[in-house]
Amino acid sequence: RKIISVTNSRLKEAILNIMCNNNNKNVPESIGVADLGCSSGPNTLMVVSEIINIIDETSRKSGISFPELRISLNDLPGNDFNDIFRSLPSFFHKVKEEKGAENCYVVGVPGSFYGRLFPQKSMHFVHSSSSLHWLSQVPLGLGTNNAMSSLNKGKLYISHTSPSDVINAYVSQFQNDFSTFLRSRSPEIVPGGRMLLSLMGRSSIDPTIEDGCYYQWELLANALYNLVSKGQVEEEKIDSFNAPYYAPCPEEVKIAVENEGSFMIDRIETFEIEWDARVSSNSSDDKILLSRGQQVAKTIRAVVESMVENHFGNEIMDDLFSVYGDLVDDYIYRKKAVYVNLVVSLKRKE
Amino acid sequence: RKIISVTNSRLKEAILNIMCNNNNKNVPESIGVADLGCSSGPNTLMVVSEIINIIDETSRKSGISFPELRISLNDLPGNDFNDIFRSLPSFFHKVKEEKGAENCYVVGVPGSFYGRLFPQKSMHFVHSSSSLHWLSQVPLGLGTNNAMSSLNKGKLYISHTSPSDVINAYVSQFQNDFSTFLRSRSPEIVPGGRMLLSLMGRSSIDPTIEDGCYYQWELLANALYNLVSKGQVEEEKIDSFNAPYYAPCPEEVKIAVENEGSFMIDRIETFEIEWDARVSSNSSDDKILLSRGQQVAKTIRAVVESMVENHFGNEIMDDLFSVYGDLVDDYIYRKKAVYVNLVVSLKRKE
Repeated sequence: RKIISVTNSRLKEAILNIMCNNNNKNVPESIGVADLGCSSGPNTLMVVSEIINIIDETSRKSGISFPELRISLNDLPGNDFNDIFRSLPSFFHKVKEEKGAENCYVVGVPGSFYGRLFPQKSMHFVHSSSSLHWLSQVPLGLGTNNAMSSLNKGKLYISHTSPSDVINAYVSQFQNDFSTFLRSRSPEIVPGGRMLLSLMGRSSIDPTIEDGCYYQWELLANALYNLVSKGQVEEEKIDSFNAPYYAPCPEEVKIAVENEGSFMIDRIETFEIEWDARVSSNSSDDKILLSRGQQVAKTIRAVVESMVENHFGNEIMDDLFSVYGDLVDDYIYRKKAVYVNLVVSLKRKE
Repeated sequence: RKIISVTNSRLKEAILNIMCNNNNKNVPESIGVADLGCSSGPNTLMVVSEIINIIDETSRKSGISFPELRISLNDLPGNDFNDIFRSLPSFFHKVKEEKGAENCYVVGVPGSFYGRLFPQKSMHFVHSSSSLHWLSQVPLGLGTNNAMSSLNKGKLYISHTSPSDVINAYVSQFQNDFSTFLRSRSPEIVPGGRMLLSLMGRSSIDPTIEDGCYYQWELLANALYNLVSKGQVEEEKIDSFNAPYYAPCPEEVKIAVENEGSFMIDRIETFEIEWDARVSSNSSDDKILLSRGQQVAKTIRAVVESMVENHFGNEIMDDLFSVYGDLVDDYIYRKKAVYVNLVVSLKRKE
């Protein structure tokens, strides 16, 4: 709840800043906004909806008409854009009725945000939520087919036992990817334009700190080991899997932003979220039937299954996430289990 | 073959005109192009590919670098955009390798072209092929739920037996729709921008002329009657179905363009295509196994099935198009069976 409320205030600040830029410019006639990693589901249009609300409210207060709004929804080409597109007519019917906003144009933009997506200076505001902790690839050198691939023995992500080569590979893959991200956005965003990025992160410079979400990967490795003992998984398979994931600390984000050079950090904030926070606010019948650990496992499964399945095979998925749920139950009973979320507000230099 | 070659020359003329506008302006830094009714299949990216070729060739000749190209692919929200999006990475990988064109941006735009689709003055060239003969709805008054619905007894489209009320309903639905189309595009296209539209049409002012493609609907009605006699279709069902389709003559297109007022007709051309022209150039194994009529039926089925199925039910589709194929065989044996295609080149007034 707190993080949604903070993210919404940051969103509002960013949009207000675009619409009333330094008091010496007028509201742009046409505003370009993008949601990167929009995914496909009930939450896909939530941020668009919020942006429209803010623009509508600001326009009314300023006594101007709703500006032309160009909305770009981006995700990888494999995303289910059909599902989003089919929900747009009713969504915009509602927007037009409630806000009188006739001039909203929505497009789907398939592609990786680790590369150019939009024309020159076409964006005023770029948003991305829960996507930038996914790397563009497994860290260079830790792929499945080379000498280093089993360096990270028994682990799926950075762990206490990971040798420094593994940690360095992760750290530099993140720096490369995040720099590429910034360099790709830089020409796309108008001077003074804004970005709001929220992603998984960690509170300390030490990448083996438990809140770096690494413990979720640690428990998943443990669950896989459990299946090794039952003969369902080969141990080498665990050694050769490394998640294309990185939870940076605020300092690492700052370094990448400063090195790239075209953005200024307005704010960078960290929030702790309990592992089962989403579960608590979930109103489905699962609450009664599943333990909290099983519910957490279900949420994680929705995010990582396709990737894990690809490496370990489809057959073990039910067993894996069932064992995983038990391990999560055990863990959250013993410890305060939290994710750390980074919320980064950036401004494109003028 | 002839029509493809003519359409390609018109395409080339249009793009050249945009790039070398009246000799007194420079090539635009960023060119917006749109394909309306892009569909989803092997031909979807053909026109985009052709446009890129023309821009590439022209740029090289003029010694300038490839301009920023913004490509919008439009179709109704129900279109399979996922399929298009998944084919884009390999398509653009090839474009970048062959043309060195780094700055192409493709978006999917779901929505009806009988309404606004794009931001103000964002388009330099708008293309639409084989889509504008589809009306936005069954002509007003000929819907299934009102008194006039069975006016067009035993027919699916305008026919010799259609009363003037039916013909007038079709004529005015086309004028409304085509005007709406032009009015929607008018603010979207830059002054001097171009449109190239190809659609089914007819050669004469008389809307009951056989080449107005009406005979394909006539034969489909006959095929349905054949199933009435077998008890598979109720006769009233035929009376209450009217295709949301209109094949205009060039004069009707001219009237709509002149009335709307923001476009000039550069050329309007008509081409006759034999019904089985597509069939002849088809390289599949069907040639050996199916009669020419059955092959035509297969092509038509791909286009109209979902609509016809919706009204008459899925169960009869195989029988219907089998009977239809036989009727087409009989018809093309007796007559020179041709479609008429209109190719309209338009310029947005300065």
